[in-house]
Amino acid sequence: MAAKAAQRPPVRKPVLVLNGPNLNMLGKRQPQIYGRETLADVEETCRAEAARLGLAIEFAQSNHEGVLVDLIQAAREKNSGIIINAGAYTHTSVALLDALNAAELPAIEVHISNIYKREPFRHRSYISPVAVGVIAGLGTQGYLLALQALARLLDR
Amino acid sequence: MAAKAAQRPPVRKPVLVLNGPNLNMLGKRQPQIYGRETLADVEETCRAEAARLGLAIEFAQSNHEGVLVDLIQAAREKNSGIIINAGAYTHTSVALLDALNAAELPAIEVHISNIYKREPFRHRSYISPVAVGVIAGLGTQGYLLALQALARLLDR
Amino acid sequence: MAAKAAQRPPVRKPVLVLNGPNLNMLGKRQPQIYGRETLADVEETCRAEAARLGLAIEFAQSNHEGVLVDLIQAAREKNSGIIINAGAYTHTSVALLDALNAAELPAIEVHISNIYKREPFRHRSYISPVAVGVIAGLGTQGYLLALQALARLLDR
Amino acid sequence: MAAKAAQRPPVRKPVLVLNGPNLNMLGKRQPQIYGRETLADVEETCRAEAARLGLAIEFAQSNHEGVLVDLIQAAREKNSGIIINAGAYTHTSVALLDALNAAELPAIEVHISNIYKREPFRHRSYISPVAVGVIAGLGTQGYLLALQALARLLDR
Amino acid sequence: MAAKAAQRPPVRKPVLVLNGPNLNMLGKRQPQIYGRETLADVEETCRAEAARLGLAIEFAQSNHEGVLVDLIQAAREKNSGIIINAGAYTHTSVALLDALNAAELPAIEVHISNIYKREPFRHRSYISPVAVGVIAGLGTQGYLLALQALARLLDR
Amino acid sequence: MAAKAAQRPPVRKPVLVLNGPNLNMLGKRQPQIYGRETLADVEETCRAEAARLGLAIEFAQSNHEGVLVDLIQAAREKNSGIIINAGAYTHTSVALLDALNAAELPAIEVHISNIYKREPFRHRSYISPVAVGVIAGLGTQGYLLALQALARLLDR
Amino acid sequence: MAAKAAQRPPVRKPVLVLNGPNLNMLGKRQPQIYGRETLADVEETCRAEAARLGLAIEFAQSNHEGVLVDLIQAAREKNSGIIINAGAYTHTSVALLDALNAAELPAIEVHISNIYKREPFRHRSYISPVAVGVIAGLGTQGYLLALQALARLLDR
Amino acid sequence: MAAKAAQRPPVRKPVLVLNGPNLNMLGKRQPQIYGRETLADVEETCRAEAARLGLAIEFAQSNHEGVLVDLIQAAREKNSGIIINAGAYTHTSVALLDALNAAELPAIEVHISNIYKREPFRHRSYISPVAVGVIAGLGTQGYLLALQALARLLDR
Amino acid sequence: MAAKAAQRPPVRKPVLVLNGPNLNMLGKRQPQIYGRETLADVEETCRAEAARLGLAIEFAQSNHEGVLVDLIQAAREKNSGIIINAGAYTHTSVALLDALNAAELPAIEVHISNIYKREPFRHRSYISPVAVGVIAGLGTQGYLLALQALARLLDR
Amino acid sequence: MAAKAAQRPPVRKPVLVLNGPNLNMLGKRQPQIYGRETLADVEETCRAEAARLGLAIEFAQSNHEGVLVDLIQAAREKNSGIIINAGAYTHTSVALLDALNAAELPAIEVHISNIYKREPFRHRSYISPVAVGVIAGLGTQGYLLALQALARLLDR
Amino acid sequence: MAAKAAQRPPVRKPVLVLNGPNLNMLGKRQPQIYGRETLADVEETCRAEAARLGLAIEFAQSNHEGVLVDLIQAAREKNSGIIINAGAYTHTSVALLDALNAAELPAIEVHISNIYKREPFRHRSYISPVAVGVIAGLGTQGYLLALQALARLLDR
Amino acid sequence: MAAKAAQRPPVRKPVLVLNGPNLNMLGKRQPQIYGRETLADVEETCRAEAARLGLAIEFAQSNHEGVLVDLIQAAREKNSGIIINAGAYTHTSVALLDALNAAELPAIEVHISNIYKREPFRHRSYISPVAVGVIAGLGTQGYLLALQALARLLDR
Repeated sequence: MAAKAAQRPPVRKPVLVLNGPNLNMLGKRQPQIYGRETLADVEETCRAEAARLGLAIEFAQSNHEGVLVDLIQAAREKNSGIIINAGAYTHTSVALLDALNAAELPAIEVHISNIYKREPFRHRSYISPVAVGVIAGLGTQGYLLALQALARLLDR
Repeated sequence: MAAKAAQRPPVRKPVLVLNGPNLNMLGKRQPQIYGRETLADVEETCRAEAARLGLAIEFAQSNHEGVLVDLIQAAREKNSGIIINAGAYTHTSVALLDALNAAELPAIEVHISNIYKREPFRHRSYISPVAVGVIAGLGTQGYLLALQALARLLDR
Repeated sequence: MAAKAAQRPPVRKPVLVLNGPNLNMLGKRQPQIYGRETLADVEETCRAEAARLGLAIEFAQSNHEGVLVDLIQAAREKNSGIIINAGAYTHTSVALLDALNAAELPAIEVHISNIYKREPFRHRSYISPVAVGVIAGLGTQGYLLALQALARLLDR
Repeated sequence: MAAKAAQRPPVRKPVLVLNGPNLNMLGKRQPQIYGRETLADVEETCRAEAARLGLAIEFAQSNHEGVLVDLIQAAREKNSGIIINAGAYTHTSVALLDALNAAELPAIEVHISNIYKREPFRHRSYISPVAVGVIAGLGTQGYLLALQALARLLDR
Repeated sequence: MAAKAAQRPPVRKPVLVLNGPNLNMLGKRQPQIYGRETLADVEETCRAEAARLGLAIEFAQSNHEGVLVDLIQAAREKNSGIIINAGAYTHTSVALLDALNAAELPAIEVHISNIYKREPFRHRSYISPVAVGVIAGLGTQGYLLALQALARLLDR
Repeated sequence: MAAKAAQRPPVRKPVLVLNGPNLNMLGKRQPQIYGRETLADVEETCRAEAARLGLAIEFAQSNHEGVLVDLIQAAREKNSGIIINAGAYTHTSVALLDALNAAELPAIEVHISNIYKREPFRHRSYISPVAVGVIAGLGTQGYLLALQALARLLDR
Repeated sequence: MAAKAAQRPPVRKPVLVLNGPNLNMLGKRQPQIYGRETLADVEETCRAEAARLGLAIEFAQSNHEGVLVDLIQAAREKNSGIIINAGAYTHTSVALLDALNAAELPAIEVHISNIYKREPFRHRSYISPVAVGVIAGLGTQGYLLALQALARLLDR
Repeated sequence: MAAKAAQRPPVRKPVLVLNGPNLNMLGKRQPQIYGRETLADVEETCRAEAARLGLAIEFAQSNHEGVLVDLIQAAREKNSGIIINAGAYTHTSVALLDALNAAELPAIEVHISNIYKREPFRHRSYISPVAVGVIAGLGTQGYLLALQALARLLDR
Repeated sequence: MAAKAAQRPPVRKPVLVLNGPNLNMLGKRQPQIYGRETLADVEETCRAEAARLGLAIEFAQSNHEGVLVDLIQAAREKNSGIIINAGAYTHTSVALLDALNAAELPAIEVHISNIYKREPFRHRSYISPVAVGVIAGLGTQGYLLALQALARLLDR
Repeated sequence: MAAKAAQRPPVRKPVLVLNGPNLNMLGKRQPQIYGRETLADVEETCRAEAARLGLAIEFAQSNHEGVLVDLIQAAREKNSGIIINAGAYTHTSVALLDALNAAELPAIEVHISNIYKREPFRHRSYISPVAVGVIAGLGTQGYLLALQALARLLDR
Repeated sequence: MAAKAAQRPPVRKPVLVLNGPNLNMLGKRQPQIYGRETLADVEETCRAEAARLGLAIEFAQSNHEGVLVDLIQAAREKNSGIIINAGAYTHTSVALLDALNAAELPAIEVHISNIYKREPFRHRSYISPVAVGVIAGLGTQGYLLALQALARLLDR
Repeated sequence: MAAKAAQRPPVRKPVLVLNGPNLNMLGKRQPQIYGRETLADVEETCRAEAARLGLAIEFAQSNHEGVLVDLIQAAREKNSGIIINAGAYTHTSVALLDALNAAELPAIEVHISNIYKREPFRHRSYISPVAVGVIAGLGTQGYLLALQALARLLDR
């Protein structure tokens, strides 16, 4: 194990946890449905879980498709993997699909709600075909499970 | 009436009149089709009608989907209702649909042209399912009619 | 203004406000949803608004597609414009589309409910492509807004 | 039982048995296919079965969609339930769907032939989503079975 | 030949020439497109051509789907064949299809304009599958050609 | 009548009442929706009604598509007719369609709920095109009505 | 009339009567369906009718799409109008559509059988949108009716 | 915490980990793609993780849709939750959807591969609409993540 | 040739000839359509042809999708190739597709009837994309031709 | 057997083996995929097999749809059956479908590759609905198997 | 550069510039739309541009799909690359797609008009998936740009 | 030529060469596929070609749809034409379509790869219907060809 660790750089690049439009509203609206946990709470829980797993993370959110593309492009150099909840852009953005392809990093798609139970236009994801895998409907715990999965992928 | 006015807060929050991409070009192009009225003219007429109705308004335009999402999110705290002409994003933006859902405000959708007469991809609106109602094809007068409708909704 | 009024014929033909199937049930069923306003109430409010706008109106309702076609054909000679809430025939009647085309009058389509929120077969309107514009989802106020819009169209 | 009967009004309103276009041709054409039973025969058999079940019936037929809408609207006050074989309008009439919704009475849809074996456009029924249930393909006996089912529904 | 003529009844039943919704507007609207010929003119020309062919005709028009169904049903007894221009009901009426089936008479479908050049919903005809044949786009001459074709069919 | 009875074999083969997947859960789950009647209760009521009609029945249920195919194949020899509620296999099983075709027996399709009110994939039945008729939405009474209809079919 | 005749060139170009693939088999196969009339018989009858109408005709048939395109292109110079029964190429040939467009001549589409009664792929015609009109299902008489219609068109 | 644990029954029912067709082939075929881990290995890892989480599990596999339905029905009494990898039946089985509905237990859907990257018919899952959530594409680790998610759901 | 034969194992594994639902009814029903040949006859003829080709065969039939999956899985070890007539499961079973993929054996798909002439849902085969080839419509001779083709494939 | 041979005409007409566009390129391109066998080789092998089966054959290829139609039409008189690999025209030619219908000969469709594994537009064949059967994906051996099947059909 | 030129064969095979149906009509019809440039003019301009680029060209046109297939097949030996404007066959010819595949030469697709602005059936090209690239809507200059692009491809 | 140059304004506005999302990654990722040329290299080559053609250019890229809309709007005043490679927004942005319409400048659409060979969602372009023409699949040379085409358009 020590030998293997020696082969990879002593400090691994952080994982990018990227959130799309309206996820900044988490916990502010309809708490009876989405709970009272805010995106800041999610970030905190993610940092704790990442620390437990020996990972660093960068946590970001934007309502702007272009900013999300910028961040994924930058991830190519700065990050080791991506956890992405692209929100509404999941269903409409070919630009994110192309950016993820260009980033050439392992990515895991997360959705807090079960998108397959919702309107038909939410059943299509442009992210899924370029993600390693998808976690949907398991609430904000989905982020933590994704971190575990990414940790294992990066360890291989 | 006086009694009823007393029940609601003395100063109501303004209505957000939000315009999407390319509406800033109004009056500048193809005046034989769209008329010579600019978006600034529309704003002025809206302010006059709003004053007549006892409403304050905020008037905004952006070509950026993300900026429109930001403004709708902010409206949750700052505004009492939304009149939205989302332009081309009407037909492609799930993010606006989600933002309007999160804003939890009455919204009225306006289109200057009759979108149901145009290309098939303009027949679908992601805004309509979360709007109270839709006014299309009645030119810039549509904004004024929407203000009237919103005034009545807010008075209930 | 006086000059302009002089240009148009001293007595303008009335506007036809036409209602399709089941609108005669308004106010009689599910008052918790549709309110307690009957079609007679709507007629009265329309007459008042029309008077305010300097318009005369004829108000009609029928459950019979053929009767509606007859009335629209007659409007060609008798009326100056049409406000039409074709109810269920909105979604199935090519005959109304053809009649409106033959009438060669400005027409505004009204729906009390927001048809774009309802079953998919209600999203298609055969009326919209031949109407000047559409007002949907704003309750019976939609008729009054349509009268205003038609008044302006007829004044041009 | 006596106690239960006492609870409901001593004279129940009759059931409306409503027949759509071309059902008046029953027994007159293609007797090798449809049999020699006429609509008058069906009415007679229905009356006998209704009497056996303690029900009164009103039996009507029209080739006019508008007349059928009128009859269903009137049923709201005059009848306790509806058995409807809307014939060809089954597949094209949103107006009947709306009328049945407005009537707020239990309705059972009957088809003499098995519509699911016929042309694809006959597989869609606008009646089914607002009917309690559907009986198809069992010939004119379907009316009698529908009467039994309605009798039980009204007894609940 | 004489023998054959002897076999059929000395006086043949008249042909029904049936016109659907809005055909009564012929010649009244958009004469630059549809010409100045009215439906009365068409009737006159048809009567002349029928006389030339040794046929009697009955000529009818209605905007009411139910009336058209009634007339086709009556034709079963009263007429020897049908020429039908069902106008807008061509594309929406299963009831006419069923009525024509029940009439068990040879029918020829006529359209003044070329429906295959127009909106997609006009490309589908419920009449065509039960008609002997179709004549479209040849103006009002189409009625005369249909009379010729029907004359030949009835002579066989 | 006696003469007619003499013509048919003294002991008719029993009718197979066949139930598909999850119908064994009847009455056990969501009693507020499906009622408290179990499949055993249905069997009992069916037996009583069959006795009243002079029919014998065999009553079976299986969650296994293959077992249902086996039973229908065996019915070819053992039974005189089939009442089938194929549950979920209604919408997915071509094998049942083929088996019913091979059985060459009159079959009536029953559904406790009104499948035409439910998800779109439940609107398609592979059974309907090979059944004599369909009864849906009339609760467990549907089985009894089907028995009546089958009794009449077998008596012809 | 004489004056009008004087205005047009003394010798009009002939009409091209063009037949597509497999029409050369007419009368040779399935005479119980298609009759015993051959394409040569059709040509002869057409020549007689054309003579009666004061028209000359050229009559051609080919199984080769390219040859049909060649003939239509040549018609631009050589012919005054086209009657086309494109057979199977009706449903598959954009090349014929383009050739007819380039020919800039009035064309009438003929089909011996009623294509709207046959397989769905025969309901689409690439010819119809560029033809003046369509005659289908009236047997070989359709050619004669088309000649009459073309004669009138050329006389205008 | 101790108090909360006291509230739930001292011995919770085990979780059912259910595997559909062909999952018994895991590790036996195409090891370069699916790895060398067998279903027995997965079971062992699941048991270890479940023990860590304080859960008991039952682990089952069947190639038979009916057996899977049987097991889900039995789970209603015997189990506290379900983790289901329905394999190919995911995309074709309405029976499993109904069984899961009847079981009224929290269920998590797992797929070893990312089904959204594969053939279009694998993009549709009948399980997803009745599952709490979905984990796909994360290999056999998906089972362990699902156990974590279910543990948290059961603790609420 | 002798040299080549020496290269392959002295005793080749048998070919599995697998038959799906309702094929056990062969020869029992509608003999005027399917002939009087039973599945046992087919087996006998196959055995004879296999012997002629130097092949051993195993011949099986099941109405159970799960059993067919089991047999294909077992074939991976026990058989050298598969001839499969999956009957109705051809059109609905992704599980058979996956099993054939897992078996990693050459498979030839056989249908007694020409499935491309039948209902549209029979035009899709989940087997074809994983089979080497398809033989359809050639009656039971299709099995013998498939044996020949498989013999040649195994000899390569 | 001798008796039976005596019943059929002493010299049977030859079978037409017809090849469509690009099949003349066989063996010339991509030999690693299609093998090095040319169409001349296929012809030779077919002749040998035909001789073995007591059949004469005519072997033809054309890149021209019209030539293929011509050949099929001629086959009506000259040939006893048809084996057709229509290449790309399989998927686009209604003319070939009509020609085969007119030929009224048994035809077997052959494809060297498995067209059901290729692009979706290759899954549709206009030939299949008029062929006795289809053999696809078995390489050039498919021709020989088709000869065997045709020999048996002709012997019946 | 000299060195590189030395590496390629001293005399390169000419480029085939291939034109499909109706392109021979260029400049002859609707000159106000398509200009007065004929196909001969295009050939001349192409020859000049090819000379400038050091290429030889062969220039051909045919209205016959089969001839176009023949020419593409011959190109495999005779030409170094293909510029193809397949006209209407672009949208209907799988045979051209197969021929281009068999030719194994670089091909560039040219359209004079912007096919994506025209009827929907012109948006699909069977050529595009086997072409290196596409140039559309740039008039006859498109040929010259294609020559430049092909020159560069051949120089690599 | 000198005379013609004198006719146009001495200093023409520059051409805007506009690049959409992820094109800034050119040359940085997957160089074995996209080559090592960066967007800066493309800009340099474009500037050289533009200079050769007597054009000035402005070269821009953005990942933000809104910024691209802004730049196209500004082009209305600042530029004489547009070359646009909208990247992923090609397939999803109605806003760009509207902006190009409002700009009222000639625009040429460029794609480095052949989008018609890729995923189906890349076959639809919202740009094509408002562009003069399209160049796709010819690598970065496409920009240079587009400059040539635009130069010619501007010279007219």
